Amino acid sequence: MSKPFCIGPDLITDQNRALSKDLDADYDHLGVQLARRHIDLESVTARVQQFAVAIPSWGVGTGGTRFARFPGLGEPRNVYEKVADCGVIQQLCRATPMISLHIPWDEPKDPAELRAAAASAGLRFDAMNSNTFQDHRGQRHSYKFGSLSHADAAVRAQAVEHNQQVIELGKQLGSKSITVWVADGANFPGQQNHRTALERYLDSLRAIYQSLPADWHMYLEHKLFEPAFYATVNNDWGTSYWCATQLGPKCQCLVDLGHHGPNTNIELIVARLSQFGKLGGFHFNDSKYGDDDLDSGSINPFQLFLVFHELLEAAARDPAFAPAYMLDQSHNVTDPIESLMNSAGEVQRALALALLVDRERLALCQQHNDVLGAHRLLKQAFTCDVAPILAMARARAGGAIDPIATFRASGYRAAKAKERPAALNTGSGIV
Amino acid sequence: MSKPFCIGPDLITDQNRALSKDLDADYDHLGVQLARRHIDLESVTARVQQFAVAIPSWGVGTGGTRFARFPGLGEPRNVYEKVADCGVIQQLCRATPMISLHIPWDEPKDPAELRAAAASAGLRFDAMNSNTFQDHRGQRHSYKFGSLSHADAAVRAQAVEHNQQVIELGKQLGSKSITVWVADGANFPGQQNHRTALERYLDSLRAIYQSLPADWHMYLEHKLFEPAFYATVNNDWGTSYWCATQLGPKCQCLVDLGHHGPNTNIELIVARLSQFGKLGGFHFNDSKYGDDDLDSGSINPFQLFLVFHELLEAAARDPAFAPAYMLDQSHNVTDPIESLMNSAGEVQRALALALLVDRERLALCQQHNDVLGAHRLLKQAFTCDVAPILAMARARAGGAIDPIATFRASGYRAAKAKERPAALNTGSGIV
Amino acid sequence: MSKPFCIGPDLITDQNRALSKDLDADYDHLGVQLARRHIDLESVTARVQQFAVAIPSWGVGTGGTRFARFPGLGEPRNVYEKVADCGVIQQLCRATPMISLHIPWDEPKDPAELRAAAASAGLRFDAMNSNTFQDHRGQRHSYKFGSLSHADAAVRAQAVEHNQQVIELGKQLGSKSITVWVADGANFPGQQNHRTALERYLDSLRAIYQSLPADWHMYLEHKLFEPAFYATVNNDWGTSYWCATQLGPKCQCLVDLGHHGPNTNIELIVARLSQFGKLGGFHFNDSKYGDDDLDSGSINPFQLFLVFHELLEAAARDPAFAPAYMLDQSHNVTDPIESLMNSAGEVQRALALALLVDRERLALCQQHNDVLGAHRLLKQAFTCDVAPILAMARARAGGAIDPIATFRASGYRAAKAKERPAALNTGSGIV
Amino acid sequence: MSKPFCIGPDLITDQNRALSKDLDADYDHLGVQLARRHIDLESVTARVQQFAVAIPSWGVGTGGTRFARFPGLGEPRNVYEKVADCGVIQQLCRATPMISLHIPWDEPKDPAELRAAAASAGLRFDAMNSNTFQDHRGQRHSYKFGSLSHADAAVRAQAVEHNQQVIELGKQLGSKSITVWVADGANFPGQQNHRTALERYLDSLRAIYQSLPADWHMYLEHKLFEPAFYATVNNDWGTSYWCATQLGPKCQCLVDLGHHGPNTNIELIVARLSQFGKLGGFHFNDSKYGDDDLDSGSINPFQLFLVFHELLEAAARDPAFAPAYMLDQSHNVTDPIESLMNSAGEVQRALALALLVDRERLALCQQHNDVLGAHRLLKQAFTCDVAPILAMARARAGGAIDPIATFRASGYRAAKAKERPAALNTGSGIV
Repeated sequence: MSKPFCIGPDLITDQNRALSKDLDADYDHLGVQLARRHIDLESVTARVQQFAVAIPSWGVGTGGTRFARFPGLGEPRNVYEKVADCGVIQQLCRATPMISLHIPWDEPKDPAELRAAAASAGLRFDAMNSNTFQDHRGQRHSYKFGSLSHADAAVRAQAVEHNQQVIELGKQLGSKSITVWVADGANFPGQQNHRTALERYLDSLRAIYQSLPADWHMYLEHKLFEPAFYATVNNDWGTSYWCATQLGPKCQCLVDLGHHGPNTNIELIVARLSQFGKLGGFHFNDSKYGDDDLDSGSINPFQLFLVFHELLEAAARDPAFAPAYMLDQSHNVTDPIESLMNSAGEVQRALALALLVDRERLALCQQHNDVLGAHRLLKQAFTCDVAPILAMARARAGGAIDPIATFRASGYRAAKAKERPAALNTGSGIV
Repeated sequence: MSKPFCIGPDLITDQNRALSKDLDADYDHLGVQLARRHIDLESVTARVQQFAVAIPSWGVGTGGTRFARFPGLGEPRNVYEKVADCGVIQQLCRATPMISLHIPWDEPKDPAELRAAAASAGLRFDAMNSNTFQDHRGQRHSYKFGSLSHADAAVRAQAVEHNQQVIELGKQLGSKSITVWVADGANFPGQQNHRTALERYLDSLRAIYQSLPADWHMYLEHKLFEPAFYATVNNDWGTSYWCATQLGPKCQCLVDLGHHGPNTNIELIVARLSQFGKLGGFHFNDSKYGDDDLDSGSINPFQLFLVFHELLEAAARDPAFAPAYMLDQSHNVTDPIESLMNSAGEVQRALALALLVDRERLALCQQHNDVLGAHRLLKQAFTCDVAPILAMARARAGGAIDPIATFRASGYRAAKAKERPAALNTGSGIV
Repeated sequence: MSKPFCIGPDLITDQNRALSKDLDADYDHLGVQLARRHIDLESVTARVQQFAVAIPSWGVGTGGTRFARFPGLGEPRNVYEKVADCGVIQQLCRATPMISLHIPWDEPKDPAELRAAAASAGLRFDAMNSNTFQDHRGQRHSYKFGSLSHADAAVRAQAVEHNQQVIELGKQLGSKSITVWVADGANFPGQQNHRTALERYLDSLRAIYQSLPADWHMYLEHKLFEPAFYATVNNDWGTSYWCATQLGPKCQCLVDLGHHGPNTNIELIVARLSQFGKLGGFHFNDSKYGDDDLDSGSINPFQLFLVFHELLEAAARDPAFAPAYMLDQSHNVTDPIESLMNSAGEVQRALALALLVDRERLALCQQHNDVLGAHRLLKQAFTCDVAPILAMARARAGGAIDPIATFRASGYRAAKAKERPAALNTGSGIV
Repeated sequence: MSKPFCIGPDLITDQNRALSKDLDADYDHLGVQLARRHIDLESVTARVQQFAVAIPSWGVGTGGTRFARFPGLGEPRNVYEKVADCGVIQQLCRATPMISLHIPWDEPKDPAELRAAAASAGLRFDAMNSNTFQDHRGQRHSYKFGSLSHADAAVRAQAVEHNQQVIELGKQLGSKSITVWVADGANFPGQQNHRTALERYLDSLRAIYQSLPADWHMYLEHKLFEPAFYATVNNDWGTSYWCATQLGPKCQCLVDLGHHGPNTNIELIVARLSQFGKLGGFHFNDSKYGDDDLDSGSINPFQLFLVFHELLEAAARDPAFAPAYMLDQSHNVTDPIESLMNSAGEVQRALALALLVDRERLALCQQHNDVLGAHRLLKQAFTCDVAPILAMARARAGGAIDPIATFRASGYRAAKAKERPAALNTGSGIV
């Protein structure tokens, strides 16, 4: 087999060359505009450049729904090909230096080899993800009726053991955390005793927590519904918070933007969990109806901005605040690499816009009940066009000014379509 | 191969014998109670006995979600086994004499043979269902980006042709209608031009409508979202109504209880579409969050009652009003046969309760703005225990007084688990 | 002034006489039916008879919306007339021996006199309610921009002092608790710093908590939105729980059925708060869209049943579990007395139905993942007609078998329309 | 009485002078950026300058909720003072040359005098609004149980007559349309017969329609809920559309952004109604939970942009498309004049951003299923900073570059606080 196709650095240089003059002009004018508001453009750009968000390994494959999955061309067929695709995203965007693995989907034969492969693609491993929402080949007990909260102690033990193995693997891969999302719940009133189920869930979590290395974190991910359609064991931030406090300081809550009911004020949840010292992670996506796992910022970019406004508030109050960020999306009708590059940019955009908020003046308006004045400070920041900042941050870090145009120009997808002919459809592969 | 296991009539007789004395006593006392309100018990029982709701062929298999599907034992592996399972439901419940097929999932080699098999199981074929939301083996064009409203005329033509073939097949099977549900829509703002998409959808429907036999109906099924997560081509009853009026009298709207946004007043939609002469069909299920396809009446039985209250209002105003009823559920954690028998009973229960409403007194209360009086008439009907009516209707028609207990006593599922060892997982198979 | 009109005990006796024969027959047959399921009718009736739910003083006036209020005839014009109306409700229903007052709306000149008036109407005082969501005559600072969480310490101090005065008054009236609901929040992103606002709210609560007598409780009532339309200070159960734990054991959470987002599983919140030892009170009403304050059980009676199923679960695990129950409704188009009598009955109905659940068999089904079996146990209980139990409980306690018919026969409303000519419109008066 | 305080033109000139240099620089650089995309800055500015949105007369007063209303200083006490405030908005913004009156709130003694007063403030009268959701002094029948759809023909006749009088008044004021919003509906299942109610509503509308002058339009405004909390007579766009088609070409539908259920895709409703030829008007506001009537663009500015994208699509297909635009907001915690000026700017911003969409390239992406490409064209437009366009459009028309800063500098509010001491609280005054 010949060497897999790679995007050469020259392409990026060439593509950037054509755009750099306009970028410089726009960047400079933006600097002048921001200087009038006493904002230093360079420090914003630097903050954007430092920002990093993880790519989930399953995100580079095409997602699907319960109705169908329409595979794309050249999809990665194993964890090494997933690493390769994530490497391209990082190569062009310079904002995604981490991969988040999903076990057993990504179980490597040789962890050291996988770690080396990632390193050579400029990547390291972020939070590990366990999977007890599917039945895997060779598994003794089924998770049809639950896993960590199952009525049968043997099933719970199996699920606990799986999580412990994921931690073991993560240690070899250099990860420092595990995200626990379970699908446990009920489809019918009466199916479960809500209190007993939560007690069992907590007991199982305790056993996993005991296995955590000293420098690791465990993230609890709540979800209102799906695949359980009447009640979920860890269904909201309040439940997640309570569990995390029962377990200890290494356990934190993870907020996924799509795991809430209609009309939920998610930025308020960010404020709450960070105020209570339990916000550990964030999964970015967007949605209009349910947990749609659409691309970040594609439906409600102002909400994403308000979330970052709260994240910056938390960081301002606690310099140690550093949650784990990940893009958790399902790419059903787009090229996953393109969507992830675009979404990394949207998340950076929200950060950049939130950095433009004049927090001192905002506090003054709030103190004097100048409601419209306070609101307009947010809108003044939000309506700024920070595209030059994002492009400059990428270019300075060696990435592409226009990552999608560069990706399309590279021929990467067509090359992979040839290299990876047999798309394996191993489940829908969506979280 | 030996003859497949069947439930013998003696079992039903035996099981009923043990229950009939109590049933008679309860039935008689209910008659006394209703007589005080000038309601004739026997005419209610007769109406319940006449009621029929179709079983979708795919409903007898275990459903799933985008995360996983956990197959049950002894699932039907082909359309003949589906017919057999539907036959058992009808044998025990006597409320489900029709099957609704899904093509190509249920495509028979010999339609006449299939029709005979159904007839011998006491079943006939209700509305046919086409499928352009999945890519099928040997299909020229993909439906990844739409079907009846696809940007490419060739894809639209393929989807139209498929629907026409479904009609042809339905003619041979004795069906008189086709239900058209398409998954077409968009996941991103900008993905589609909403107006162009609707124009194309309507054009395609016109071509299908042209192929309808004179005595057939075409049902348009709207859905707010899923699998399209930002916009759907036929997204609400208003759009569906408009399309149906553009096409002509043979085209009607079909309401699925789960295809609406949060807080939607669905009984009001029933009132609207029947008032405007376009309510042709109904898919029963229940839901708490999205289109959860839970068992009918399991989450909000009062809503189901209010829907039947409107259906009876429509029938009172127009004796020819006779929509096509179907149970459209996804059975993820229950035995599908049990769930469907139970759900048929829940739908009958809602009908029976609605029949108890004193419509004359209700109209008087409404006319005099006795708001609480009017409401209490509905609640008085709803809080009645009509279980004896349902059981008596079943027993008189030759079914089981307690269908689920009888089914469990029969050993049917265990027998099928042996007869049908290889569960074929042909897609998630859920609509 | 002549003596106010009262309903004489003879009327109740006369009305009951006409209904008692049928009631006896129905009650006896229900006893036979329940005995088959090993349920003792009499113990259910006894539990229903013991149940008590408070009437809010403002509930006996006609409610309104931001668009209009349409007063009814003979509305109470002061706290003594409110007590009289509440007395009638208790006289006929025998389920509502407590009133919940709202200060300053109900501020008495002579607390001892008011307490005596209530006692002579067979009533005692339940939780006191403070009001910092309106500006009252003579008040120094406005609550336009908040109260307990206001940016200005002087406004916060005023709001704290008001709550302390309400506690003082409650002590004189024999109350043992205060419910704190504040309207504080924001209408615009940026209006408030969510964390600072919660800190201030908690500080103010601490000051009130310090003033609580040893045998009192303080109930925190969360609300998702309205009158604040973007963010609320105590917006969900998680926030409420956190605040209650910060304050101490005398502080508990109160759940109002209408204060949640669409699709929220409220019975799960009941399970959570009781499991965590912080469920102190419950406000009953029903809603279809927002915080509609409709009559209890009028929109989703199955949800009300499931809530009581959880309340009984909590009581089964902790015999000391005894939350404060209140009907919190807005009667815009009905006679408030009729609505409250009807609603008390609906709440009792939900209790009675929940008492019919076979909890032992349910636990067995849950343990063995007989999902449909478990669910059907709930539905079997819910579909029972317990009207005879409710009527018998009322009759045995000296109330009316049919309270609304008896009320209508009494001429009470017409008499009050004459006695109370000048309907005072002192605000919309709704919580 | 001395002459009321006015803002002199010199203030605007002075304020603008200080800002014009930076504005020119920003405007020029934006022109360069847009030219790269082949967009002509000047034609965008011209389109923005032509845009007009009406101010509702009641919008210049402080709004409230069912809980409380906190009046602001210097609120207008009659229609002439409302006209004065609207005149200031137009003076500074140059985007709001119309007022929409509400009868009987704004009933003038001398219509000609009012018309002259408006003209001298640079204003004309847009759609008239009738009011049958409140009981007005001297009114014979109450609207407690409905108006146009009331069970009693006499009430319906009174409501029809009121609407006819509003039309008569509008003719004298130079208006050309009437907006009919009714609060009719039900709070309880059973309260109304949904079909009968709609029939009566339509009959009443027919009578009003008969009174419409030949060059007038009638706008039907649907609303999901509030103040009716279970069912509304004109509850959704489908119902509104059906009614409008029954009445004739002079009847059109009006969409209010806040009158829909959670998760509703409102831009799709805009597409539908314009495609079907029945979109006549638009009420702008924003909301997070219900019909919150928050300031336009304050919660979901991307949605507002997508709405304008559809409005431009409609205009591109039909040059005669010209719906009536109005700001329909409730200003509870801000200065109403400031909020309305800011909101006019937000609506203009959405228009300006939508004008930047490259519709030709978008159609190409859509035709070739380049989903991300299509979406990015929308986002590229939306993320542009068009503040210089809005400011330049205002300045060129004689308005203020920064209207709110200029308003604050003017001392207008303080002057009015003195001139208008007695704030009349005539109802909450919110629609």
